Order: sequence, then structure tokens, then C-alpha cells
Amino acid sequence: MAIRKSKTPQSPTQRADQKRVDILKSAAKCFRKTGFHQTSMQEICTEVGLGPGAVYRYFTSKDAIIAAMAEDERRQARTMLTEFHDTDDLPQALSAITRAFAARYAAISDAGLMTEIYAEGLRNKRVGAVIKTAETEWVDGLAEMLSTAQERGQINPSLDAQQAALLLTAMWDGLVIRQAYTQALPAEMLELFDDMLKRWLSAASAPANLKRAKPAPAAAPSPVATPAPKAKPKAKPVEPEPELALALPVVDNMTPQVEMDLRQMSLI
Amino acid sequence: MAIRKSKTPQSPTQRADQKRVDILKSAAKCFRKTGFHQTSMQEICTEVGLGPGAVYRYFTSKDAIIAAMAEDERRQARTMLTEFHDTDDLPQALSAITRAFAARYAAISDAGLMTEIYAEGLRNKRVGAVIKTAETEWVDGLAEMLSTAQERGQINPSLDAQQAALLLTAMWDGLVIRQAYTQALPAEMLELFDDMLKRWLSAASAPANLKRAKPAPAAAPSPVATPAPKAKPKAKPVEPEPELALALPVVDNMTPQVEMDLRQMSLI
Repeated sequence: MAIRKSKTPQSPTQRADQKRVDILKSAAKCFRKTGFHQTSMQEICTEVGLGPGAVYRYFTSKDAIIAAMAEDERRQARTMLTEFHDTDDLPQALSAITRAFAARYAAISDAGLMTEIYAEGLRNKRVGAVIKTAETEWVDGLAEMLSTAQERGQINPSLDAQQAALLLTAMWDGLVIRQAYTQALPAEMLELFDDMLKRWLSAASAPANLKRAKPAPAAAPSPVATPAPKAKPKAKPVEPEPELALALPVVDNMTPQVEMDLRQMSLI
Repeated sequence: MAIRKSKTPQSPTQRADQKRVDILKSAAKCFRKTGFHQTSMQEICTEVGLGPGAVYRYFTSKDAIIAAMAEDERRQARTMLTEFHDTDDLPQALSAITRAFAARYAAISDAGLMTEIYAEGLRNKRVGAVIKTAETEWVDGLAEMLSTAQERGQINPSLDAQQAALLLTAMWDGLVIRQAYTQALPAEMLELFDDMLKRWLSAASAPANLKRAKPAPAAAPSPVATPAPKAKPKAKPVEPEPELALALPVVDNMTPQVEMDLRQMSLI
């Protein structure tokens, strides 16, 4: 079904923006149904009710459409961050963001499309480049939010805000996929997530505060209470298990040779 | 290039198993290069050096190949869990698992293929059913490991082990995608992840222990020290922001109607 146009008078720029949105929405509808490799540009034209010439004026290829989707998606998420920029309760802001992502990708077809876009970005250089830029902007924005919260004493000041923002983003990505496979995220899962974030980011368990606090009694030794960067008990590297494809030695910088060996060790 | 066969004598079962593995490896090679929708069964036959009849004896379709890959991948991961079953240091075991996943999917093409399989499982019922079963077995195994650690007093006994296993799996999934987009996980990220897990799962910050511990001084109020299930300050639902596609109200059980509205609110 073609998208119905509004009858309200629009400026040429508004009309162009609207057409762009219409094309993206129609393309997404096709992609959700059959995946983007099995969708042709002709099918997108039919869905949006425009001729190929009109569609190609906005997007010269399916890749360009996919890249635009990934970009718009992250830009919207980025806008959401600005809403929380002056929050005085970071855990609550993060909880709201978690719930916004959970709601945004509650439909399995949307979670599937987002996952497919991620997969495509890892093989297709053009799509990958756009996603990388959009992701960097998002992660930077999130890191800035975390830094501000650190300056205000809301969260652990010893955390690397940039790495923490990356890890948070990874958690949200994973949650979207998991949600799609378990049909819906139960309320307990969202609460567990909030609780995990509070424990992880808590300013109260940060070394600076703990130094001022009375040491915990010997009966309750606390890894949380251990000053993080210096005295943290670092996990020892685990010996490789030759019979297992997944139990591998600690490798921080993978060389091409190592990648090759891993690939041969496993089925895929 | 066809896979070279070993000259060592093999039983018929061994030969069959080996052929199955050869087909999966060759298919994965094709899929990594061009994606599985753009790979034909004929290309897989050529890659493995077998005729269509021989390949179809093992896998009747590409779907069956993809499903087998997802299943084998999780089975290998499950085997790894059994290695850690009697661990007396759960955080170290989880750290080793994190590093094993990071190493396994260090090659972008492998991370891309795994992500593509997840995406396919969300649209394709046959693939989805196999993935769901394999995932359930994996999560159950992980939950059992967490329960054992809880019984031994290694981690917070008040955590819901099943939900925590789901969340951990989501984190690892997300980490694999994130790693692929940032090229490699820096050592700091892996340490941050270990530290997050310690803080989250810590038995020392569990309500049972905290009740015995001396209360923290008023200068350092601690969300971590708050007894979790009862007195935990529950995040208030955030008001919806109508102008934002992602800032949505808290929805625990999405009805089809709500899904529809969300879809219309955003571009994809």
C-alpha cells in the first residue's frame, strides 16, 4: 500500500524531506518482510508509489537506503540523549533509555531489521562507514553524559567514560537481540538491568569514597570495596583448552594469523 | 578451493561427520564473503568439492545449513560452560568466557556471520526455532552455573539466576557486535567488563551480607548498599516525549497495537 500524502501545503524542502521519509518507511516495510537482499528497488518504488526516477533522486542504491536508516536511527537516539543532558539522576536516565530501546525494538521485525543492518555494515564498506560514524557520534554523546555525571559526583569517577559508553551501548544492542528471541523483556529483566547499572556505576563504591568510608568488617570481604585501578585483583589468563573451539587464550590484539587459526578451529 | 581430505582411514560414521563439518566450513566461507542470501547451494557444492546429491544428503537447504551453524556454535559454547562447572572463582570463569567469545569473534567476518544468523533467525521460522532451542539450552546451562555459585556463596544470592544468565548472554552478544565495529576490544574494555561483572554479581554487596555489615557513614549514601528486592529505589516511569521517536513510556507487555504505533513513530 502506498503511503498517503498529507493535503497540507508544504514548502519544496518540506516536500523533499517528506518524500525521503516516505521512501525510508516503505523500504523498511519491504525489508522487514523479506530482508533487504531479497527486496528490489522496484519493490520499494511500488511500495512508496513513486517512479524509479523519483526514488533514485533521493537514494542511488539500496545500500544508500540502509545507510540512511542506520544513520537516522542513531540520530534519533542521540536526540534522546540531549533530553537527559542535565539529569541529576543518571541511573534513572539510563533506565529510561533502556526502556526506550526496549519499546523501540519490541516488534521482532524491527529488532530483526536493526540486527540485519548491523550485519550488513560488517560486510558492506559503504554501509559500514556510515554506521561507524553514527555510532562514534552516539558513543561520544553518551560518554559526555557519563563524564558530566562523574563531575557531579553521581557516578564512579574512576571509570573511563568512553569505554563505559561503549560497553553500555553493547549491552543495549545485546538486549535488543535477546528481547527479540525471548519475545518480550519481562519487567524483572529491566529491573535487573537497572540494578546492575546502579551497582556498576555507583559513586558510593568508587575508590575515592571508599577511602573515606570505614573499612568493611573482615567477615564481609568485598571485591566491590577494592580500589579499582590499582589493587583490583586482575583475572589470571586461563590456559587454552585445545579440545574446545571457544576456550581460547587471552588475546588482546589479534593478528591476521591468529584470526585464521580461530576460524579453522570452529565450524563457522 | 575444495577442502583437502585426510588420508587416515575412517569409519563410515567418522566419514559422515567429517563431510558434514566440511560442508559447514565451506558454506561459512561463502557466507562470510558474500552473505548467505547471495550464496547459492551450487556455490557451496563447488567450494566443498562435492556434488549436489552428496550435499543434499546432509542439508536439504541453506536454511538447514544456517540452523546447523547456529546450533553447533552454541553447543561448543555450552561445552565450554561444563569446563567451568566446578569453578571456585566465578568472576574469573566469566572473565575467561568473555575473552573466549572476544577471541572467537575477533575476525569481523565471523562477527558479521553470527550477527547475520541472529537476524535471519528473527525472520525465518525454521532457523529461528533451532536458534531458540540452542539459546535456551545455553542460558539454562549458564543459569545453573550461576545458581551453583550462589549456593557456594560466591555471588549475590538474591539474583534471579535465569534472568541474570539472559542478561549476561545479551552482554556478550552486544560485545561481539561492538568489537566488530571498533575493530578490536582494547584490553581496558575487557578489564572494564570484568570489573562491571564483579560489582554486579558481588556477594559482598548482597543484602544478606550488608545487614551484618556496619552501615555506611551518612556522607557516602550507597545505592549498592540498599537491600535490593525490598527497599530498592525503583526508577519512576519517564514521561513520554512526543517529539522523540525513542523516548517512550515504560511498556512491559507490548500489545500488537502498541507495536504498530511505535513502528509508525520511527523511520524503520
